[in-house]
Amino acid sequence: MNYKRRIYNFQSHVKKRGFEGALIVPGSNFYYLTGLNPLGTLERLFVLIVPSQDSPTVIAPQIYEEELSEFDGEVILWSDSENPYKIFATKVRETFKESEKLLIDDTMPVGTFLKVQKVLDKYSLYSLSPVISELREIKDEDEIKVLKKAAKIADKMFYKLMDEELEGKSEKELANMIEYMMKNEFDADGVSFDPIVASGPNGANPHHTPSTRKIRKGDVVIFDYGAKYLGYCSDITRTVVVGSPSEEVKKVYEIVKESQETAFQQVKEGITAGDIDSAARNVIAKYGYDKYFIHRTGHGLGIDVHEEPYISPGNTKLLKEGMVFTIEPGIYLHGKFGIRIEDDVVVLNKKGVRLTEAERELIIVD
Amino acid sequence: MNYKRRIYNFQSHVKKRGFEGALIVPGSNFYYLTGLNPLGTLERLFVLIVPSQDSPTVIAPQIYEEELSEFDGEVILWSDSENPYKIFATKVRETFKESEKLLIDDTMPVGTFLKVQKVLDKYSLYSLSPVISELREIKDEDEIKVLKKAAKIADKMFYKLMDEELEGKSEKELANMIEYMMKNEFDADGVSFDPIVASGPNGANPHHTPSTRKIRKGDVVIFDYGAKYLGYCSDITRTVVVGSPSEEVKKVYEIVKESQETAFQQVKEGITAGDIDSAARNVIAKYGYDKYFIHRTGHGLGIDVHEEPYISPGNTKLLKEGMVFTIEPGIYLHGKFGIRIEDDVVVLNKKGVRLTEAERELIIVD
Repeated sequence: MNYKRRIYNFQSHVKKRGFEGALIVPGSNFYYLTGLNPLGTLERLFVLIVPSQDSPTVIAPQIYEEELSEFDGEVILWSDSENPYKIFATKVRETFKESEKLLIDDTMPVGTFLKVQKVLDKYSLYSLSPVISELREIKDEDEIKVLKKAAKIADKMFYKLMDEELEGKSEKELANMIEYMMKNEFDADGVSFDPIVASGPNGANPHHTPSTRKIRKGDVVIFDYGAKYLGYCSDITRTVVVGSPSEEVKKVYEIVKESQETAFQQVKEGITAGDIDSAARNVIAKYGYDKYFIHRTGHGLGIDVHEEPYISPGNTKLLKEGMVFTIEPGIYLHGKFGIRIEDDVVVLNKKGVRLTEAERELIIVD
Repeated sequence: MNYKRRIYNFQSHVKKRGFEGALIVPGSNFYYLTGLNPLGTLERLFVLIVPSQDSPTVIAPQIYEEELSEFDGEVILWSDSENPYKIFATKVRETFKESEKLLIDDTMPVGTFLKVQKVLDKYSLYSLSPVISELREIKDEDEIKVLKKAAKIADKMFYKLMDEELEGKSEKELANMIEYMMKNEFDADGVSFDPIVASGPNGANPHHTPSTRKIRKGDVVIFDYGAKYLGYCSDITRTVVVGSPSEEVKKVYEIVKESQETAFQQVKEGITAGDIDSAARNVIAKYGYDKYFIHRTGHGLGIDVHEEPYISPGNTKLLKEGMVFTIEPGIYLHGKFGIRIEDDVVVLNKKGVRLTEAERELIIVD
């Protein structure tokens, strides 16, 4: 990725939106703009200052010297004997005029902000998120390639799971295996989030934490996980049945599949995120299961596993070329089972293309 | 753990320090006070309000209903059609009088805080961290038990590693294995941080990210990792040599070991964190390697892997019964190798007791 251009585009955008600069902490915005991902920095001042017109500056603890050697801009390192907020104050006053409007990274922790705010009391501070999201939600070719690779890892992992004997293994065991295999065999840098394996009645909770419950014959099992690859996330859900499925399971599975497919077919440039949500929801409502679809239809996907655009009821955001998001309707029957099918989708040449492609037909595992 | 008592102690402490209450978001403070660890909540308002005298209230998105069923206090759930900040404003005004002094969780992200701050404009806000740290840094019996168990997992993992053929394996492979085995075989809930495996010259960077570099004969290899158990962290470092060590490696290893042991022997109630740091640093200085010991000697350990007390130069914080921290001096020789030895230590019956006990003598692996 060309980070020089990315910073430049960001600066133009910041200016166009009426701001004079932005203050960014290590995390996904920092990575988006610099390609750098310094870790373990919450306790100590580490900030990237991007004025809308001049070159950027990073202020960081001394020990990050090596990690910042490739940073394209000014690097100011502070040692343990210095007060970093003084250094920060000097730099800010040198860079921005009083009362200018600055954007501040939404992920900065309050512990840092309460100190930073004292330095910035002469400036007006605004949330960075709505401004940088307008850029981050549109993925370029390089980003789509990387997202595709992250999705491929998730696909491969699903087929690997289908080769495993599921019966008798605990949810936890399988969740650990998913993380280990994606990292060790499929080249993932990490996981997008802790894998979810939810079996039997546990599947009725969309936020279930893998437990020691062992999978048994007749269980409906939800696998929901994702790989990180070069900093970008995938996110897939597949639901399988161990042994023979009941008529109810078969029926509900087909409804979720139809909902997911219908929503996917709707994807095109110019309709709203809310339209996609309705498309998924209407199918489920048609069969009378709408009160069992208890979450939004999807979320954007990129450096963060949850980002813009959110595929939620009434969201008027227009879909655009290069947007990447999940479509993941589900039906949750308390005390019985849950079924969810999730794919990652990109808007390409004005219509939807799936990035995850693992089998979506109901798989019955012996 | 008795969370009712923990909330009560916290309230008395808040009052004693002159505050009327605290606002806390999901994370380590939330877990400390409630035993609950709701995940994935950064985007949506989720806040625990603890007045210094009345029972606590949690305001959370509807979907967390089940996870909050065991919360001991008032639960207010908001649905997607409601404005959570309005609900929050009403509750805050009902609970606190204007201009009262409130503590705010340091980990709350600015994105939330900028909205919360508007609701709280009539109150004075202060950082929660220094106040709650005074409680969290002293571990009770139950916490020490859990920390001991987390340390045991780290010990077992080290012996497991010593049974492995290291030569030919990549740093990444070993790091993945450490995480998988601790979770799958030794009952860890997770890792305290991404395991570090740093071989040969990579060991000279204390923040090294495990790479595809394969371990070869003659390498000095640093393993630095920790287990999470019931929400509490361990953190261990051991350095081993593959094949025969050079005279320099042997010499530096003995210096680091002496430094670590000397600092450990100093631990007792009533001396300062800075004294422990000096004890470690002086040994290394005695042999002329002080400029290669480029970080602090240690950090507190608990629900967070880095917390109070910090064992850093000049820190005047007094060690007290029940404090738990690491002692981890190291020597880093750029282009050559690094050596670090780290144990977790608790102040018990006025003196230091090691929680991690894996072999500290130089291990030579064939």
